[in-house]
Amino acid sequence: MGSIPIMMDFQNKEIVIVGGGEIAKRRLKLFTNTGAQITIVSPKLLPELQEMQQRKLFNWKKKKYQAEDAVNAQFIIIATNNPFVNQYVRESAPKSAFVNHTESAERGNFHFPASFQRGRLTVSVSTGGASPYLAAKIKNQVEKTFDEQYGVYVDFLYECRQLLKKTTISSAEKTILLKEILKDDYKSIEKQKEILAKILTLQKEP
Amino acid sequence: MGSIPIMMDFQNKEIVIVGGGEIAKRRLKLFTNTGAQITIVSPKLLPELQEMQQRKLFNWKKKKYQAEDAVNAQFIIIATNNPFVNQYVRESAPKSAFVNHTESAERGNFHFPASFQRGRLTVSVSTGGASPYLAAKIKNQVEKTFDEQYGVYVDFLYECRQLLKKTTISSAEKTILLKEILKDDYKSIEKQKEILAKILTLQKEP
Repeated sequence: MGSIPIMMDFQNKEIVIVGGGEIAKRRLKLFTNTGAQITIVSPKLLPELQEMQQRKLFNWKKKKYQAEDAVNAQFIIIATNNPFVNQYVRESAPKSAFVNHTESAERGNFHFPASFQRGRLTVSVSTGGASPYLAAKIKNQVEKTFDEQYGVYVDFLYECRQLLKKTTISSAEKTILLKEILKDDYKSIEKQKEILAKILTLQKEP
Repeated sequence: MGSIPIMMDFQNKEIVIVGGGEIAKRRLKLFTNTGAQITIVSPKLLPELQEMQQRKLFNWKKKKYQAEDAVNAQFIIIATNNPFVNQYVRESAPKSAFVNHTESAERGNFHFPASFQRGRLTVSVSTGGASPYLAAKIKNQVEKTFDEQYGVYVDFLYECRQLLKKTTISSAEKTILLKEILKDDYKSIEKQKEILAKILTLQKEP
């Protein structure tokens, strides 16, 4: 209880994943394109992880985990199927580190909700450990309501907002425009071009 | 770009909020019941914040912000309407701290999505800065599909899962039960009582 959702930018953050199996693989995939510095500590790796390691998607410490492996870690992800190792990782973690324990979310201090993305749009669902199946079910239901191209529309909204920041119109006028473009009409590329052209005429002189 | 959603347990985390106005108030409310240690640094507070301060919901440093105010902060929330102060906070933040800058999410390293809760269920929506209005709109649309009592159902799922952890049945059988209770039938209290009674008969001997 008491957890709240945040969007975390992991750029250059030091992440240690303990374990080289299925859970480690799933976690690693979450961090694709985040720019995190990831180290996996594990005597063995799944073949798919070995292949990812050859593409330098993470550093591999080919060894059994010891506390010193996480001394600089800001985030530690516990992902072995050995309860004794998992307990040791948790108990020996630096106080400043945030710990995720997949099998027992209440023992860590962060966890990963079910989520989907459409470009810049991210929707996430957590049940705080009540039911990962329910989280996945709700996530899937909501996901179905967004077509694959929805990210293009969100990119258009981003572009409008960035351009509006450079104009001199009042913040009340900005608000009107930012709400106007939420209308379904603006999912059409023609309408998007039209309003982008209009906003460009509002730009500040250099 | 590159941010991913996590659920963060803020229990005992040191949070510094710089500013004592509307944004500070909104952020403070997010942390209600998280057990975070919150300090607000600001020469002034909104009346509503003063009242919250009297209830000891946070520590108040009644002063202009200086870098040393955040030396132990794990999370820093920039919430003044003075761009120079905001820039100073950002630039003088300890390297180990996570910074949220409401007005310019891309300059911090974490931000708050639009979200709602029903008991243990949390759904959150972020557009990565593209359109806070769209995030709120999607959040509201999804929220409407969950009635006020939905949290009670999620609590039931939580109870089932906790009880099942204490049984000796196989993990395949657990999975069947955990999926069974997602059926709409189990929103009825009668059906909930029925299956809870059944699960209790599966408990391990002490």
